[in-house]
Amino acid sequence: MRLRKIKDARERLCQNNNKYFINDLENLKGKFPNIFNNSNPIHIEIGCGKGKFIVENALKHPEINFIAVEKFDSVLLRCLEKALEYDLDNLKLINVDALELGTYFKEKSLDVIYLNFSDPWPKSHHAKRRLTSPIFLEIYKKILKDDGVIYQKTDNRILFAYSLESISNNGFSISNISLDLHKDLENENNKLENIETEYEEKFGINGPIYRLEARKVLKND
Amino acid sequence: MRLRKIKDARERLCQNNNKYFINDLENLKGKFPNIFNNSNPIHIEIGCGKGKFIVENALKHPEINFIAVEKFDSVLLRCLEKALEYDLDNLKLINVDALELGTYFKEKSLDVIYLNFSDPWPKSHHAKRRLTSPIFLEIYKKILKDDGVIYQKTDNRILFAYSLESISNNGFSISNISLDLHKDLENENNKLENIETEYEEKFGINGPIYRLEARKVLKND
Repeated sequence: MRLRKIKDARERLCQNNNKYFINDLENLKGKFPNIFNNSNPIHIEIGCGKGKFIVENALKHPEINFIAVEKFDSVLLRCLEKALEYDLDNLKLINVDALELGTYFKEKSLDVIYLNFSDPWPKSHHAKRRLTSPIFLEIYKKILKDDGVIYQKTDNRILFAYSLESISNNGFSISNISLDLHKDLENENNKLENIETEYEEKFGINGPIYRLEARKVLKND
Repeated sequence: MRLRKIKDARERLCQNNNKYFINDLENLKGKFPNIFNNSNPIHIEIGCGKGKFIVENALKHPEINFIAVEKFDSVLLRCLEKALEYDLDNLKLINVDALELGTYFKEKSLDVIYLNFSDPWPKSHHAKRRLTSPIFLEIYKKILKDDGVIYQKTDNRILFAYSLESISNNGFSISNISLDLHKDLENENNKLENIETEYEEKFGINGPIYRLEARKVLKND
């Protein structure tokens, strides 16, 4: 997500004590996601970009709690602006690097992790920065419930090939792979639901969009 | 591989007692691949089609023994005709259904299995007929050496997505995935060698060719 840096993004994220952005993360360490007044499932999107995907999901699924995770405050601000168009009780925004998620979230607390059009880090010596590298997968394994799911969507061929290998060789089982999501969605037998991200709307026509689901392989399997 | 049925294909496979086709398989049950007078590695192609891939490989790699496996005798005849253009000591042809491979080959006797553009069996109720379904993977696991490799290549999106799931969830580790082989081959950093099949020559331009490598996950891993 390339976006002009906004100098006072952090201040503006806190504007009007809005109910979406959680500023005082330190006090919530290890307590996440106990910030909703219900026991509904929790879905997080890592790298929420401008927020179209997660805000539309939150609107569509009031029975699910959503947390938008984004490390760039200037980007998260765009997501906040979109959320402020609505009055949603099931959406929170946090400004955190994915590497830190294990320190904020309780173990086995999440039902779903979305990885949508993550930065591909195309150079192989940057591979460990990809959100599906073993270092991140270990974090996801810890914070996902035993029956939790990772949904990945990307149009980057190299990132997807890397992810298939990395995920299947690091304690996850892969299913419902699509090597051309929009073509497969045309198939009448499919039961997939697809909410497009901004990126997908703009660029999806240039090549196939890949997607997968990944679930933890449990030790007693 | 669609091909006109040739009535006397079986007789013609035995023509002139050629050195390629092995007619008397029954007597070799469990002894395969002890048919070469050396201890070189053994590579088999399951579904050799007209044989371009395996004949060219045999020409290029005299240090490897190749076995072409094909269940349709009319198709195998085309492979034989191509082999007869050369004088190769490292190539044999057998007319066998892949389901039978476990009864002919010794356990842990194969170094490589090639699956090139296998029949996709697109209907989901035919999925178990696909050459990467669990029933076939169990056979490959038995006849492959512990460090043996499966190389799969296909232009069928549905078959490849199915294969990624089936292989990674049934005791194999996947690596060197390409979601567009010809594009990835253009990359100067790649070290892949690609010998095209007839099918690939003809149809490869219509869409991406997918490939993967799979190795057994050993119990003590």
